[in-house]
Amino acid sequence: MHFMTALRAAWRTRNSLLCVGLDPDPTRFPAHLHGQPDAIFRFCSEIVDATADLVCCFKPQIAYFAAQRAEDQLEALIAHIHARHPGTPVILDAKRGDIGSSAGQYAVEAFERFGADAITVNPYMGRDSVEPYLEYTDKGVILLCRTSNPGGSDLQFLDVGGGERLFERVARLVADEWNQSGNCSLVVGATFPNEIARVRELVGDLPLLVPGIGAQGGDIAATVEAGRSADRTGLMINSSRAILYAGADHDFAAAARRAALDTRDAINRHR
Amino acid sequence: MHFMTALRAAWRTRNSLLCVGLDPDPTRFPAHLHGQPDAIFRFCSEIVDATADLVCCFKPQIAYFAAQRAEDQLEALIAHIHARHPGTPVILDAKRGDIGSSAGQYAVEAFERFGADAITVNPYMGRDSVEPYLEYTDKGVILLCRTSNPGGSDLQFLDVGGGERLFERVARLVADEWNQSGNCSLVVGATFPNEIARVRELVGDLPLLVPGIGAQGGDIAATVEAGRSADRTGLMINSSRAILYAGADHDFAAAARRAALDTRDAINRHR
Repeated sequence: MHFMTALRAAWRTRNSLLCVGLDPDPTRFPAHLHGQPDAIFRFCSEIVDATADLVCCFKPQIAYFAAQRAEDQLEALIAHIHARHPGTPVILDAKRGDIGSSAGQYAVEAFERFGADAITVNPYMGRDSVEPYLEYTDKGVILLCRTSNPGGSDLQFLDVGGGERLFERVARLVADEWNQSGNCSLVVGATFPNEIARVRELVGDLPLLVPGIGAQGGDIAATVEAGRSADRTGLMINSSRAILYAGADHDFAAAARRAALDTRDAINRHR
Repeated sequence: MHFMTALRAAWRTRNSLLCVGLDPDPTRFPAHLHGQPDAIFRFCSEIVDATADLVCCFKPQIAYFAAQRAEDQLEALIAHIHARHPGTPVILDAKRGDIGSSAGQYAVEAFERFGADAITVNPYMGRDSVEPYLEYTDKGVILLCRTSNPGGSDLQFLDVGGGERLFERVARLVADEWNQSGNCSLVVGATFPNEIARVRELVGDLPLLVPGIGAQGGDIAATVEAGRSADRTGLMINSSRAILYAGADHDFAAAARRAALDTRDAINRHR
């Protein structure tokens, strides 16, 4: 199914704008998983099974798998999501960015090897570095625009002419020029609600992936009010650590479900 | 050994500014390797053994390994370079870029899992997204500055104030602020020699990684004249496909050696 079609269906049928980020850190796993060879898969798949009906998408962060030599567990996890929770889009958070020939290989990695439905991509190298992903017209291509970390302003907040900031230029380029197949989206951090509002103004109903609530401190009410689209969807609001590590014992998945439910409902109260 | 120490020693002892890029594309391998389970390792290690005395560094591009589910062969390849050709720095061309906690995982991937001596990193997310790599003070951190692809100008050439281009701002930030431990370097494409010269002017003797000669069409003479440092080193001039695929038969490694020798000598004629 087309990523955008699946996402819109999930917004509606699950009544949720919540994206659960899967950033598995084995040092924070409950004790019974320590030392297990498939601990990452078991941890993440239990989180997925406990929260799938509450989310509009999942977002595994590939660095956490790569650092642990666990690409096979990432493959198994995405296959598990597709098999057990069909219609739940999976965003591979990889923030890739390279020239065409290498970007083509990264697209194969994300979409063919891992079976992701969407990927996050860095815009610094420009349009032709993004084309190889865009050519998979049924897949989502989510460009970094305004990121939620302090150093995000080092470049993204520079004035590139007439008062336009670099992140605004990225938003405009993506919405007006790169989104020919209707498969683009943007990353806009929750720590800057007025900038989310500005991006929303520039991009119409383009979906926005918003990290930075929960552990990173972004405000849910301000994020939703600033970022929702005309039909009160348009957002994938990501929470990772606050949900994954809500509990630290055998019942970690149940604790994650409670945290996900609370977050989904807090988001819905402000839609 | 510190990446910068190893690089400077290799420039001197091998009398070479050539970096051989390892972008293994199995469809271009000689016939006797087709269908072999370790074809990527065998192809790359033969290239390495045939060219190591002619280079100042090797640069495996991780996307080509990841698309083929061949991380194990990349680990084996880097271990092979360190064991057989000690003192030859290995740059993992990964162009990573993410917030601190994920960047920390990517640093573990590059430096601890793969044993790379340096990594390429995307600057779009700003200084704190680069810190986790910089903290490995003996490793090289090579920031994208001006890339050799056509779309590179979409963002990098924007005027960020007073006529300063975004890539110039990146060069200045890296040289003046991010390079506290002396382990930074920049990527500047060979297709824009006057911009290489401008970056050299801004960054003193900072090493520059220059892709884009050979298959991508950059001019060697112009690149060397624009980019060399005061002591006529300062460059890692990358060639990948023109060397890797110089031959297409059993003697592919010998053909690669001839191409590498020609390229090294062409570079040296203009130093």
